Amino acid sequence: MSDDSSAPIITCTAPVNIAVIKYWGKRDESLILPVNDSVSVTLSSEQMHAKTSVTANANFSCDRIWLNGKEEPATSGRLASCLASVRQAASCLKTGTQVSTSWCVHICSENNFPTAAGLASSAAGYACLVSALCKLYGIQGDISALARRGSGSACRSVLGGFVRWHMGNMDDGTDSIATQLRPASHWPGMRVLICVASDTQKKTSSSVGMKNSVKTSELLKYRAEYSVPPRTDTIVKAIEERDFQTFADITIRDSNQFHAICQDTYPPCVYMNPTSHSVSSLVHQINDHFGEKVACYTFDAGPNACIFLLEKYVGLVASLLKHFFSEDSASAEFFRGNALELESRKELLEALDITPISGGLKYVIHTCPGEGPEVLGEEEALLDKNGMPKNLKV
Amino acid sequence: MSDDSSAPIITCTAPVNIAVIKYWGKRDESLILPVNDSVSVTLSSEQMHAKTSVTANANFSCDRIWLNGKEEPATSGRLASCLASVRQAASCLKTGTQVSTSWCVHICSENNFPTAAGLASSAAGYACLVSALCKLYGIQGDISALARRGSGSACRSVLGGFVRWHMGNMDDGTDSIATQLRPASHWPGMRVLICVASDTQKKTSSSVGMKNSVKTSELLKYRAEYSVPPRTDTIVKAIEERDFQTFADITIRDSNQFHAICQDTYPPCVYMNPTSHSVSSLVHQINDHFGEKVACYTFDAGPNACIFLLEKYVGLVASLLKHFFSEDSASAEFFRGNALELESRKELLEALDITPISGGLKYVIHTCPGEGPEVLGEEEALLDKNGMPKNLKV
Repeated sequence: MSDDSSAPIITCTAPVNIAVIKYWGKRDESLILPVNDSVSVTLSSEQMHAKTSVTANANFSCDRIWLNGKEEPATSGRLASCLASVRQAASCLKTGTQVSTSWCVHICSENNFPTAAGLASSAAGYACLVSALCKLYGIQGDISALARRGSGSACRSVLGGFVRWHMGNMDDGTDSIATQLRPASHWPGMRVLICVASDTQKKTSSSVGMKNSVKTSELLKYRAEYSVPPRTDTIVKAIEERDFQTFADITIRDSNQFHAICQDTYPPCVYMNPTSHSVSSLVHQINDHFGEKVACYTFDAGPNACIFLLEKYVGLVASLLKHFFSEDSASAEFFRGNALELESRKELLEALDITPISGGLKYVIHTCPGEGPEVLGEEEALLDKNGMPKNLKV
Repeated sequence: MSDDSSAPIITCTAPVNIAVIKYWGKRDESLILPVNDSVSVTLSSEQMHAKTSVTANANFSCDRIWLNGKEEPATSGRLASCLASVRQAASCLKTGTQVSTSWCVHICSENNFPTAAGLASSAAGYACLVSALCKLYGIQGDISALARRGSGSACRSVLGGFVRWHMGNMDDGTDSIATQLRPASHWPGMRVLICVASDTQKKTSSSVGMKNSVKTSELLKYRAEYSVPPRTDTIVKAIEERDFQTFADITIRDSNQFHAICQDTYPPCVYMNPTSHSVSSLVHQINDHFGEKVACYTFDAGPNACIFLLEKYVGLVASLLKHFFSEDSASAEFFRGNALELESRKELLEALDITPISGGLKYVIHTCPGEGPEVLGEEEALLDKNGMPKNLKV
């Protein structure tokens, strides 16, 4: 519904994704091409998502962006390069909307979860931005390669369910795209507990960390060439067959190998904290107790554990997380997201050897796999009819 | 001075050694043959040593051992296998003392540093035991292969200075021995600060941890085959040339790679704690500040940092360790071992970005490279003339 000089306001949401085969290391810094394939699970947008409105207008004097209520520079860095890639794709279109790529854009984006919590906010953010821009310009087909230009892992958030990012072989990166392995509905029993750790520790950013790893870790090359390919094949098959035992085994091993590469980096990047290691140990001990994999964990470039588990064990694992890692005074607020019913087993609690870390976790989000980006109605827009943010931080 | 039915009491000390190229993983569990060479620095016995007295007597009814004042089983496990290896070597001797290998032995051993501190006490202990037994039986030449049967890293503690443990290629392990690269006197400026961390965390024992690593870490094989050999060549040359920059670089990288392998193990073994990571970061920041390597760190299977540095920087690094990691009420007792003069630099302190961990370190031992095992006089014996311990814990 654009007229000669203005475009409609497009509003989208996009989900967070959690890698179970990790992306760590680029073979091309500017095109954001990875050294290995990765596999992820897209989480339900209901609990965690980015939301972005975009519009374009011949009368806007420059590209502008507001992130979580605050204006940020839009003419440099990854954002600018992502925007340029989308405009270039739009200008090559035979069909499309009548929105001119020469018009400046206004972008307003926010997350419904704390950015600082280290919960893959840039992946959701760039997936959302690219989804909205592609809708604005009428770009169809694969948009993962465009999202990739914003943040590597964002390419996996443009799809729902179980997703594989193919590293690709071509120098121009055109075959480095994400594809859906299975939709979220394929594995209805799968649940996720996101354990948000209390941490104020300064950490190396992912992009700096992975750059250092590529440059200095002697083990990274081996991981990319010899460990990841068979693991990827195995976990893809496990997803197809809903084989939780294999899925959990590979997920744990790959998370640990990723943090091993971080430790092998010069200087080392340390993302896990004592609570992270303790959550990891808890999961191993629960699994040992049951003689099968009840749950598995994975950690990104931060201390938060993401626990995948089958529905029937949610109450049990959640009660143990609360027991060992909540603040003594923790209220019902400790659990967020989908409702859950705590279930405690005395004999299991007695079998565990975990030193409690009171307040080690701030809260736990109960969620599940979900679908990809969605286009919302006009009433949901974050920009007003003049293309300015409705809500600004003062 | 043995008569027909009794042997003299032999008393030895043996030093601790710190690996700069790490031993992690056996290719033969029973012969204790490693998957790669390792390189270590033997520390001065003045600050830290094991002390052992042994004797044998036709009238003793069984082999007995007292460790740090407490009797321990002597007829099973590594101790028994080490003792059996020494007796077998003794029985093959053409010459030697008149001490019969059929006589039972009494052994009394103690460390002059806390065993629980995780300071390579078993290496010093087995090196000392084997040194004393070899003296008792008149075994000469290489005794490192015998010490290896007690604890792998013990083979490096039978020599002083800078030592290389050759993994060897033979199935029977006869070429898996330690050799001295250079005596301690070769590098007179080298100093060592052993940072003893406050930690009560239960940890996986080295032998269980390395067994799990060999079984489950995909990266370990690569490390052993491709990372360690060139690193070993490089650090051997650095030691020969007293090239601290290269020595420090390889030492840091190899420590981190070893802990990377631990993290890549299933389940992961975690030995470093937040203080360890913070000491590591301090060393990197000091080195960055000076634009050269002033110090380097290495961590064994525990949270204690061992810092190697040149004499002129001891006061500076020590004052920073005290500043960031001592208890607020730390007395002069925080530093043990050789005297040192604290030196603080305001501009360096301001440049550092370290979050203090009060009480993260219990104390710091200032020491230096030193020589191998020594034989002491009779007056130093831990056993009385009846072959019983002079001091027993009650």
